[in-house]
Amino acid sequence: MEKKVIIVGAGLVGSLWAVYMQKAGYQVVIYERRSDIRKAEISAGKSINLALSERGWNSLKAAGVEKEIEKIAIPMSGRIMHSIKGDLTYQAYGKKDEAIYSVSRGHLNAIMMDLAESKGNTKIHYQHQCLDANLEKGHITLKNLNTQEIIEDKADVIFAADGAFSAVRYNSMQKVDRFNFSQFYIEDGYKELLLPADKNGNYKIEKNALHIWPRGRFMLIALPNEDGSFTCTLFMPFENDKYAFKQLDSDDKIEHFVKEVFPDFYEMIPNLIENWHQNPLSSMSITRCFPWTVGKFALMGDSAHSTVPFYGQGMNAGFEDCFVMWELYKKHKDWDKTFKIYQEIRKPDGDALQDLSLDNYYVMRDHVSDEKFLLQKKIEAKIHERHPNKWIPLYSQVSFSNIRYSDAYKKGKVQEEIMQKVMSSPTIEKNWDSKEVENQILSMIK
Amino acid sequence: MEKKVIIVGAGLVGSLWAVYMQKAGYQVVIYERRSDIRKAEISAGKSINLALSERGWNSLKAAGVEKEIEKIAIPMSGRIMHSIKGDLTYQAYGKKDEAIYSVSRGHLNAIMMDLAESKGNTKIHYQHQCLDANLEKGHITLKNLNTQEIIEDKADVIFAADGAFSAVRYNSMQKVDRFNFSQFYIEDGYKELLLPADKNGNYKIEKNALHIWPRGRFMLIALPNEDGSFTCTLFMPFENDKYAFKQLDSDDKIEHFVKEVFPDFYEMIPNLIENWHQNPLSSMSITRCFPWTVGKFALMGDSAHSTVPFYGQGMNAGFEDCFVMWELYKKHKDWDKTFKIYQEIRKPDGDALQDLSLDNYYVMRDHVSDEKFLLQKKIEAKIHERHPNKWIPLYSQVSFSNIRYSDAYKKGKVQEEIMQKVMSSPTIEKNWDSKEVENQILSMIK
Repeated sequence: MEKKVIIVGAGLVGSLWAVYMQKAGYQVVIYERRSDIRKAEISAGKSINLALSERGWNSLKAAGVEKEIEKIAIPMSGRIMHSIKGDLTYQAYGKKDEAIYSVSRGHLNAIMMDLAESKGNTKIHYQHQCLDANLEKGHITLKNLNTQEIIEDKADVIFAADGAFSAVRYNSMQKVDRFNFSQFYIEDGYKELLLPADKNGNYKIEKNALHIWPRGRFMLIALPNEDGSFTCTLFMPFENDKYAFKQLDSDDKIEHFVKEVFPDFYEMIPNLIENWHQNPLSSMSITRCFPWTVGKFALMGDSAHSTVPFYGQGMNAGFEDCFVMWELYKKHKDWDKTFKIYQEIRKPDGDALQDLSLDNYYVMRDHVSDEKFLLQKKIEAKIHERHPNKWIPLYSQVSFSNIRYSDAYKKGKVQEEIMQKVMSSPTIEKNWDSKEVENQILSMIK
Repeated sequence: MEKKVIIVGAGLVGSLWAVYMQKAGYQVVIYERRSDIRKAEISAGKSINLALSERGWNSLKAAGVEKEIEKIAIPMSGRIMHSIKGDLTYQAYGKKDEAIYSVSRGHLNAIMMDLAESKGNTKIHYQHQCLDANLEKGHITLKNLNTQEIIEDKADVIFAADGAFSAVRYNSMQKVDRFNFSQFYIEDGYKELLLPADKNGNYKIEKNALHIWPRGRFMLIALPNEDGSFTCTLFMPFENDKYAFKQLDSDDKIEHFVKEVFPDFYEMIPNLIENWHQNPLSSMSITRCFPWTVGKFALMGDSAHSTVPFYGQGMNAGFEDCFVMWELYKKHKDWDKTFKIYQEIRKPDGDALQDLSLDNYYVMRDHVSDEKFLLQKKIEAKIHERHPNKWIPLYSQVSFSNIRYSDAYKKGKVQEEIMQKVMSSPTIEKNWDSKEVENQILSMIK
């Protein structure tokens, strides 16, 4: 009898995992609560644009699907900061050939679904909502939202790639004795705005960069789309702050706010008010849980470790889950063993990813507008260039390497301590590029 | 039209709150998932015995029901520690007239239900499971588990006193945007054992004390019942420890374990193995969440702040929720305002209660067998006796006062710092009762 897996969720992680599972000779059945996004309009503004980086590419390559994605990915080689006065500052993310890539979630998801189905042995059932699961037996109960029919299915193993609000986790795992779980919302919300191409279809600001308007307690960012437009996202507290969404309770106030704090952006964006009301105000949360596997079920991606978007690593981490699970399965050829090791090694990485994501919010909305911070990053880049094996800046570890998140997080803390000492020198602005500073840093590396 | 409240859960908190609400002139409808415990056998061993202390009494008095409870409450004026050798050590909980009270959960609950119903305007519907709630409208959907009928009900306000695994919280609140929630299981489980009366119906060990067999990483405790027996509870890691429940996988090992680590207890308990298998191995968790009120719904007791049992404060905190809510409602006569203030002032107390409960596990299973710890507590008791307004030991703040948990927790930390300094003196064993030590302590109190 043919081996069969069920995947709950045809999102990015679910559809990539289907490709992997086909390679392993499994028949794959995917149940997805929503309709086929390929038949619906792909909305540019429904969720934050994604930044694909090394871990994501690595996992796509292992599945043999990276070529298709390269076609829609726009490299962003650094950040461009917009000051209130309209001055621009550029900070490279890494070395010359290193970049993170802006991709449209909808477009990427559609390609991944095509790839999963085109291999011939994956069937995606849309509008099927997971109601219940028998974790030990590998059974799942679903409702066909079209016909209202309740159906049952079973498989050798079942993967829940059904997102931050995972139905499998909520309906079944959370009820398991000794299942630890938390959902924690940060105090900030986000709203997307679309900055269209100019009348000739060209990008209004530099295409190959991630734009940031850092304003201390809040920020606006912009990522390029293929059609010359940018998806822009405003991150700001919901309330209890001078600048908060709650305060912006009239069109006048919205207009005045954008004009005051993002003047160059205000000049570029047409129909601000209409644009503002196009997309909802959304919340952001972190969910942590353990175990990640119970019986014949495993959580993958956001269902296991959903995070806030500030390191652009949510999708990359989910793809890396696939890569890690795959490597373990190839080695052990046994799901019990694979599940056990998967959650043991991957849980600390999920936790670190979340801590990194929270930390990077401060960096993006505040530190990147600080000259001292930019100088520190310049020094680190120099050391990295000269001693690539001794010093990899934290951002590069996370975005341009496959170093475990938990290791990167720990190394980043050590590096930060060293750099605090270096930056406390009163002469650092003058001699930052000197042999003396270089030796000081090298001497502190263990 | 008569004002109406719905209470979900006819447990201790729900039935006490019904008494309060009747006093306020409300018609009260309670929905309870289980059967009427008054018609079923009251199982002595189904859950940890309860220790009623000042906060609980205070809340019972405000509802005018304390007289009924006094009849079944057994005072425990201190702890008696049992060493491996069988030596006994006594530590008073507070001053001479202060005690915590052992009560049977089932018996207490039955009396509370009688009291709620006897006032004439409370109706308890048993075997009604909460399926869903419309939080803003104050509607609730329930399933009659007898008839399988689905019913709807509504009220001006609805109180969810439905425990650590609250159906209202799980089915409705957890789905509300920006609702923070966590469930966290500690690594230890518990098992109850019954130590019966002797053949003459007398208590085999001192009646008016809480007995502890502290063994470092695990412990056994015993609380007196009215019939001469003791409900005993073994707290121990589930696994990953020399002494863990997982290790005790045969009757031989159980027998050997109890004989080895609790020899005096082993001599007293008949039919150990039968006794052992009588009750399940249970887990313990802490649930935190916020907000505690949404729309017309409020969480009270364990549904808002369930904790581990080591301070004996779970029920007392739930009763205090009733007292606090009542005081606020009397003052404001407005539920929106009452709910808002209730969760603002009570949430830090719920958090502190949980931190105190976790801390006290170390005290009970380990510190109470340490002479230095007992000496420290003796010094604190002395200072308390001489300067009752300047020093109230943490245990007394929690158990014999109505000081807010959050204040007690903070004050306890300050006291601990002072006492660490005092105890570090090499002569403290000799001069602990001296004017010098007294003055040293007084000088450190702010």
